[in-house]
Amino acid sequence: MRDHVRTVLIVSALVALTACAAMTQDSDKALLQQARALFKKLPADFGDSEHPVSTDRVALGKALFFDPRWSVDQNVSCATCHNPALYGSDALSRSIGVRSQQHPRNAQTVLNTSGDIAANWRGDRKNVEDQATTAAIGRFSTGHSDHAAWIAQIESIDGYLTMFQRAFPNQVQPVTPANLGLAIGAYERTLVTPAPFDSYLDGNVSALPSQARAGLRAFIETGCVACHNGVGVGGGTFRRFGLQMDYWKATGSKEIDKGRFDITKDPADLYVFKVANLRNVAMTAPYFHDGSVATLPDAVRVMATVQLGKTLTDTEVQDIVAFLDSLTGELPTDFATAPRLPPMR
Amino acid sequence: MRDHVRTVLIVSALVALTACAAMTQDSDKALLQQARALFKKLPADFGDSEHPVSTDRVALGKALFFDPRWSVDQNVSCATCHNPALYGSDALSRSIGVRSQQHPRNAQTVLNTSGDIAANWRGDRKNVEDQATTAAIGRFSTGHSDHAAWIAQIESIDGYLTMFQRAFPNQVQPVTPANLGLAIGAYERTLVTPAPFDSYLDGNVSALPSQARAGLRAFIETGCVACHNGVGVGGGTFRRFGLQMDYWKATGSKEIDKGRFDITKDPADLYVFKVANLRNVAMTAPYFHDGSVATLPDAVRVMATVQLGKTLTDTEVQDIVAFLDSLTGELPTDFATAPRLPPMR
Repeated sequence: MRDHVRTVLIVSALVALTACAAMTQDSDKALLQQARALFKKLPADFGDSEHPVSTDRVALGKALFFDPRWSVDQNVSCATCHNPALYGSDALSRSIGVRSQQHPRNAQTVLNTSGDIAANWRGDRKNVEDQATTAAIGRFSTGHSDHAAWIAQIESIDGYLTMFQRAFPNQVQPVTPANLGLAIGAYERTLVTPAPFDSYLDGNVSALPSQARAGLRAFIETGCVACHNGVGVGGGTFRRFGLQMDYWKATGSKEIDKGRFDITKDPADLYVFKVANLRNVAMTAPYFHDGSVATLPDAVRVMATVQLGKTLTDTEVQDIVAFLDSLTGELPTDFATAPRLPPMR
Repeated sequence: MRDHVRTVLIVSALVALTACAAMTQDSDKALLQQARALFKKLPADFGDSEHPVSTDRVALGKALFFDPRWSVDQNVSCATCHNPALYGSDALSRSIGVRSQQHPRNAQTVLNTSGDIAANWRGDRKNVEDQATTAAIGRFSTGHSDHAAWIAQIESIDGYLTMFQRAFPNQVQPVTPANLGLAIGAYERTLVTPAPFDSYLDGNVSALPSQARAGLRAFIETGCVACHNGVGVGGGTFRRFGLQMDYWKATGSKEIDKGRFDITKDPADLYVFKVANLRNVAMTAPYFHDGSVATLPDAVRVMATVQLGKTLTDTEVQDIVAFLDSLTGELPTDFATAPRLPPMR
C-alpha cells in the first residue's frame, strides 16, 4: 500500500509538472504573440526614399558628426553630447555644450531614434535632418549665429568639399545647411543596435531570460505599453508627463518644464513631451527630460506612479528592469569607431 | 656611318642609364644606412617592467581615458583634447579644457609619445603616468582641486571598483592617484602607429615614394636630425626654440612663452621646450607649443629659419613634407574604437 501511495504521488507530481510546463509554454507563446502585436523588430536602418543612407552621405555625415572643428570655438562636436562611449548620450542630467553652456534638457541618444515621431524632447524638430541643420546654428551645440560661419570653417578644411560633392553630386555649391542635415541624418539613420529583444520578437523565446519575460509581462499588464510600444518601445507619440500627478513632485525636478506647450502655445500641450524611446535605456542614465532621476529602477517607479497611478512591488520593478536590459544592443561599428577626419593642410 | 653613330649613342645612353640606376641604388642604400643610424622602428608598445601594459590595466586605462564622468562637471575626458578622430590631438592652437578654460599650450598627441624624454611641452611631467596622475587634479583637464573628488566620482560608478581590483590585485584600496596614472599610462603605452617609415627602416626602400626619400635626405642634410631623431623622430631631448633668432618673430606667437625656464628657473632653460615628436605630424596641425603656425610646410620653413638659420627652397619644403607624411600610421583599433563604459546603476 505504501508503495502504491508513493507511486501515485510521483505520478501526480509528474503530471502536475508536465501540465505546468505546458502551461508555461502556452503562456510563453501567448506573451510572444502579445509582444509581436505591440512591438517591432529594428530595421537594418531608418533610411527612406527621401532620406537615403547612401555610402557617401553616411561617410560625410559621420565625419561631420565627430568633427569639433566646425563649431564656433572648434571644440564641440555632435559626439560631445552623443558620445559613443556612453551609448550616444552624455550621462549628464542636462547637457553641457559649447562655451560650457548648460542645455535646458537631457541629451537623448542618437541610437535607434531616427524613426521617432520627431526629434528632441519637445518634438520641436521634424526629424533628425531638421535637428542637425538647426543644431548647426544652435546656441548650445555649435554656438554659431548663422550658417555662413560654419560653412566658412568647413570650407577651410581641405577634403570636405570633395566629400560634399560626392554625397551631393551635380550641385554647384553642395555645402549647404540642408545637405549638412541630410548627411548627418543619413549617418544617424544607420545607427541601430539589434538587441536580445529583437531576437525574442523573431521567435527565439530564450533570448530573454525568464525574469526579463516576467518583466515584459509586467510591462504590458501595468500599462506601460500604452505609450511605450512600436520599434522604439516609445518614441512614437507625444504624451503629457504627469497624467496622475505633477511629475516634479515625483522626480524632484528643480524647474518646471512646460514641455511642448512652449513650442505650440496650445494648453493641451502643457507638460507634454515625446515619449522616451527605451532602446538601450539601461545604458543612458540619468532619466527624463531633465535627467532628474538617477537610476533605472527609480525611473520605472516614477513612471508607474506619475503616469499610471500605480505602486509597483520591488519584484515588479526588478523584472521590468530585467526586460529593459534586454533592449541593450551592441554599438554599431560605424559608431564605436572614430572616423579619420580630413587633416588641416 | 649614320647607323654607327646611332648605335654608339644608344649604347652610351644605356650605359649612362645603368650607371645612374646603380648610383641611385647605391645612394638609396647609403640613405637607408644613414636613416637606420639616426632613427628607430616603433616597438610593439612602450611598456617596461615598471610600467607593464597588462590587459587589465590597459582596459581600465582606456575606460578612464574616454570617460568624462570623473571630471568636475562630468563633461571632459582625456579624449576631449586627445581625440581619436584627430589623431590624439584636438586641432586647436591651445586646448580648451573643463569649463571652457583655454590651456596655455597646444595639446600633444598621445600616439607614440610614451617613450619621450618627459611629458608635456615643458617636460614638467616625468612620464605619461605622472602626466595622468597630475591631470586628474589639473585646472584645465578635470578641474578637480583634490584627488578625493574624482575618487568619489569614480566610486559612484558601479563597475570601476572591480576594474581597479583586477588591474591592481591584492590592494585593499586600489582607487588611488598612482594607480590611475599607471592604468592610463599603460593604455597610452600601447598607442603606437607603425607607418611607412618603419617599413622603410625594415629595409623596404619602396615603402617611401622617391619624393619622401628626397625629403628624408634633405631632412638629414639640412640638420633637422640634430634634434629630430630616434624612435619618435624627436621627443628625446629638450632644446631651445630660437637658436638663430627669437622664435616669436617667425611664428607670429602672440605671447612669449619662456618654456622650461618657468619650471626650473634655470636661465639655460629660457625658451627651452621638448623637441616635438614628429610621428603623425601631418595629422596634428596646428604646430608648435602655442599652435601658432597653421600648416606643415610653414612649420618646416619656420624650423629651418629659427633653429638652423637656413632658408629652404620650395622643393626642399615639399620633399620634407613628403617625408613627414611617411610618418603617418594607422590608428590602433584600441584607440579608434570607443570603450563600452560601465553604466550608472
